[in-house]
Amino acid sequence: MEIEINTPILELNARHAESNRQLLAKEQVYMLDIMASPGAGKTSCILSVIDRLRSQLRLAVIEGDVASDVDAQRIKQAGLTAVQINTGGACHLEAMMIARALDALSLSEIDFLIVENVGNLVCPTEFDLGEHARVVILSVPEGHDKPQKYPGIFASADAIVVNKIDTLPLFDFDMAVFKETVKAMNPTAPVFTVSARTGEGMDDWCEWLANQVADVVG
Amino acid sequence: MEIEINTPILELNARHAESNRQLLAKEQVYMLDIMASPGAGKTSCILSVIDRLRSQLRLAVIEGDVASDVDAQRIKQAGLTAVQINTGGACHLEAMMIARALDALSLSEIDFLIVENVGNLVCPTEFDLGEHARVVILSVPEGHDKPQKYPGIFASADAIVVNKIDTLPLFDFDMAVFKETVKAMNPTAPVFTVSARTGEGMDDWCEWLANQVADVVG
Repeated sequence: MEIEINTPILELNARHAESNRQLLAKEQVYMLDIMASPGAGKTSCILSVIDRLRSQLRLAVIEGDVASDVDAQRIKQAGLTAVQINTGGACHLEAMMIARALDALSLSEIDFLIVENVGNLVCPTEFDLGEHARVVILSVPEGHDKPQKYPGIFASADAIVVNKIDTLPLFDFDMAVFKETVKAMNPTAPVFTVSARTGEGMDDWCEWLANQVADVVG
Repeated sequence: MEIEINTPILELNARHAESNRQLLAKEQVYMLDIMASPGAGKTSCILSVIDRLRSQLRLAVIEGDVASDVDAQRIKQAGLTAVQINTGGACHLEAMMIARALDALSLSEIDFLIVENVGNLVCPTEFDLGEHARVVILSVPEGHDKPQKYPGIFASADAIVVNKIDTLPLFDFDMAVFKETVKAMNPTAPVFTVSARTGEGMDDWCEWLANQVADVVG
């Protein structure tokens, strides 16, 4: 029943995603979709990436939230352009919302557009936004068993980031088990271990990101 | 558009919720719906509640997950009855899933039935399960700004539990701001601060729970 009901929404979404993809290709903008649980540190990671890449790339951010503009304010304080999308209750971003945000941005002045999805490990997975890649961020306090419980998002990600590794001594997070589980469901996605707070591991992830962007922006 | 599409689902859900409610009243079972982000510590909190209340109440647990039975196994290891619901991709439990689980349980042998919803701060809010009360658990590492970003779940909860308070020194979690925000959107819900790991604060929350159950079970 659920598939039947969702099909028209997903078909409509796919059309908008395709049109976003064409626009981004034409304007030579690389778009990354960042997905995670609430509180995994998406905005902090984005700020850390901005810090490291802003000297070589022109960045902008689309912030997706059910409500509030707390995150967009943080990005703007860093001196970046941020478009806030309030989903008004919806648990994920859709391609049509991104289309409106792309309209509001000066794409010719952007190389690397980061989309922060709504904090949710389930629903955003289903919705293609027209992005070039998807990254899922898991934070150490959430526990290493999350890929077993939310397999869809971990299986479909292009890269997986484990954040808050500075708190590893405090939590029972078994990194070896985590990496093994992820490898079994998604053998090609690299796993980056970082701390947005201390900066540990951010250079490796940013190098991967910069290479991804370079492939598109040239 | 979204509301239009969802209406039949929510209407159907409301009918099943009502029938669950009647069954629970007849069988004198108190049902609690526990909602939280992935990794907030729902299962650990439930195990801690079981520990404290099992000598006075007959408990059972319904575990909701997108996939896996990791959590149900943990409950069973504690010697309790646990029914696992795998939603097969769905981001929340629905009343019809609960109806099937109630069917599988010996309700005459249960006073207090705890439902662990899928880890998600958005979607479960919309679906009445026929429960007596809802508790939302937020963990310290997620940050104190979550009520602003996910207002629906915090506004509709009957009680709010802040878990992992043993990690407060490690994170920038402003408890005063959190309590103020929550109070503004939900003046009547008590806020309990706990650590499932150290046991701190669990007695207060369990006392509240036991009183809630006593009102129904008598």
